[in-house]
Amino acid sequence: MKKLINNPADVLEDALHGFEVAHSNLVKVYRDPNYIICRESPVKGKVGLVSGGGAGHEPLHGGFVGRGMLDAACPGAIFTAPTGDQIYEATKAVEGGAGVLHIVKNYTGDILNFEMGAELCRDEGIEVETVVVNDDVAVKDSLYTAGRRGTGLTVMVEKIAGAAAREGKSLQEVARVARKVNEYGRSMGMALTSSTVPHVGTPNFELADDEIELGIGIHGEPGRKRLPLTNATGISKLLLDPILEDLPFKSGDSVLAFVNGMGGTPIIELYLMFGELMKYLDTKNITVERSLVGNYVTSLDMAGCSFTLLKLDKELKGYWDAPVKTSSLNW
Amino acid sequence: MKKLINNPADVLEDALHGFEVAHSNLVKVYRDPNYIICRESPVKGKVGLVSGGGAGHEPLHGGFVGRGMLDAACPGAIFTAPTGDQIYEATKAVEGGAGVLHIVKNYTGDILNFEMGAELCRDEGIEVETVVVNDDVAVKDSLYTAGRRGTGLTVMVEKIAGAAAREGKSLQEVARVARKVNEYGRSMGMALTSSTVPHVGTPNFELADDEIELGIGIHGEPGRKRLPLTNATGISKLLLDPILEDLPFKSGDSVLAFVNGMGGTPIIELYLMFGELMKYLDTKNITVERSLVGNYVTSLDMAGCSFTLLKLDKELKGYWDAPVKTSSLNW
Repeated sequence: MKKLINNPADVLEDALHGFEVAHSNLVKVYRDPNYIICRESPVKGKVGLVSGGGAGHEPLHGGFVGRGMLDAACPGAIFTAPTGDQIYEATKAVEGGAGVLHIVKNYTGDILNFEMGAELCRDEGIEVETVVVNDDVAVKDSLYTAGRRGTGLTVMVEKIAGAAAREGKSLQEVARVARKVNEYGRSMGMALTSSTVPHVGTPNFELADDEIELGIGIHGEPGRKRLPLTNATGISKLLLDPILEDLPFKSGDSVLAFVNGMGGTPIIELYLMFGELMKYLDTKNITVERSLVGNYVTSLDMAGCSFTLLKLDKELKGYWDAPVKTSSLNW
Repeated sequence: MKKLINNPADVLEDALHGFEVAHSNLVKVYRDPNYIICRESPVKGKVGLVSGGGAGHEPLHGGFVGRGMLDAACPGAIFTAPTGDQIYEATKAVEGGAGVLHIVKNYTGDILNFEMGAELCRDEGIEVETVVVNDDVAVKDSLYTAGRRGTGLTVMVEKIAGAAAREGKSLQEVARVARKVNEYGRSMGMALTSSTVPHVGTPNFELADDEIELGIGIHGEPGRKRLPLTNATGISKLLLDPILEDLPFKSGDSVLAFVNGMGGTPIIELYLMFGELMKYLDTKNITVERSLVGNYVTSLDMAGCSFTLLKLDKELKGYWDAPVKTSSLNW
């Protein structure tokens, strides 16, 4: 295992320290339990937004804490759900009197612990709504999930709900918008290589030099199938066909297209894949009105990518375009 | 070789297409010769900024084309200098009547071809100044360079000179500020793994599972020495000591600190390294006033990182903080 780390057991703590000092103008990081909050939060009268999940997917979620997106993020241990206690403390810290929305990727541990955190908050009179993200069309049920997994679309849910909250919408309205994003969006990923969890020290799975894993999960959990390595055009079609069929996306639709790197894939390849995505959507008469390309929902050092499409309407486009100031999305 | 590509010979063209369609609101991409210009350029009365270099270092330089940074970028073939023709056409395209600054990383081919491009422009009456970036303290002279190589600091030169140009400064003044950044900044990098050039198909060099290359160049050219793999604290000190000694940076200095990923290193490790950098600079009584963490000057899929320190004064801080709108830096 070749990594830029000290003690494998301390990777999250050490990285959180680096994140804290790199972005001290924007966020505060609390310990024991760990959570990251926006320096401006709580904002009186604004719905608070809290998300979280296992570490190893950076910049998700801490990189999206800031003005116009998340108020707080709860990083669990690597590939491990945050505890109810983290969620409880983060929720209390950002509650500004208008309730708090929990944005939860659909993994069994995350669902359970966010429920526990929400219950603790409700016991103290804090209103909490929960939105579950389950955009991954690759598999139903997996090593980490009952039902579909939550992956790349989480970025869009957090950005768009964050903009609605910033505009002063009510908790019910922010939750409605977040659920609409989940309803309108679909994702699928693939891996060229496995990731290696630091405290394990060996790859999560083995892929031959001429194999890819189609439908990979962001924890390296198995996908749909293993296939011989093919070219970018072929991989793009293998990812897009299931996404397009699932919603379904139709001729004439306008979408936001997101090509996400898994952590070990260079940016030149992500742009190349974005070009392939555009060419294929052109043949389907689907218009890409907004785009995002980069490493946003990673799986440690895995090489590979995921595609996310979100069907846009005027409301979602407006919230996507609204100003945002976080360490990883900024406009 | 496992990469998200089609024909290895077409990687740059395919990725340029993806870049063009992903950021069509911000840039225009021209072909034959290839160059990327800001949609707003030329701006009448503003100094134009042109940079460029071999592809494979994305987002450098195309990701920094936009308002308040570069007017144009010329991507050469992978790890190959852009041609004089590319530089000539890009310079003409962004000249707004106040002259053009060429920002050139110190590699032999880049220097020669930028000189050629500048001469062609001067023949047509365009005033051109050139600033050479040579921040890498690792080695003097290498496979690609006479003198010190230009690496991570290029991002700071482009941002800060871009802000000066945006404020309406003269060509001489913008060049002075760019040279000051080069004078005040130093960098050094290291690799955990080699990169693989697509049309070669095999790693540029071999590193054992327990080895690192200290002082690596961004084309995988040899560094200072090979060392046994050590931990993040050790690597941080190995990078910082030569940087600190070279300027030298002194107790009481304020700096911008930049931890750059080489393309294959996950973000969690970059933040961890940033934390290590902060701890070490604390012991030297050097204050980090600004920071940047991420994959900005990459070497394809190489795993590793580089550190850059830039001594800050009021002028440089002001230009760094000035608004910027590019696909990779945005505030």
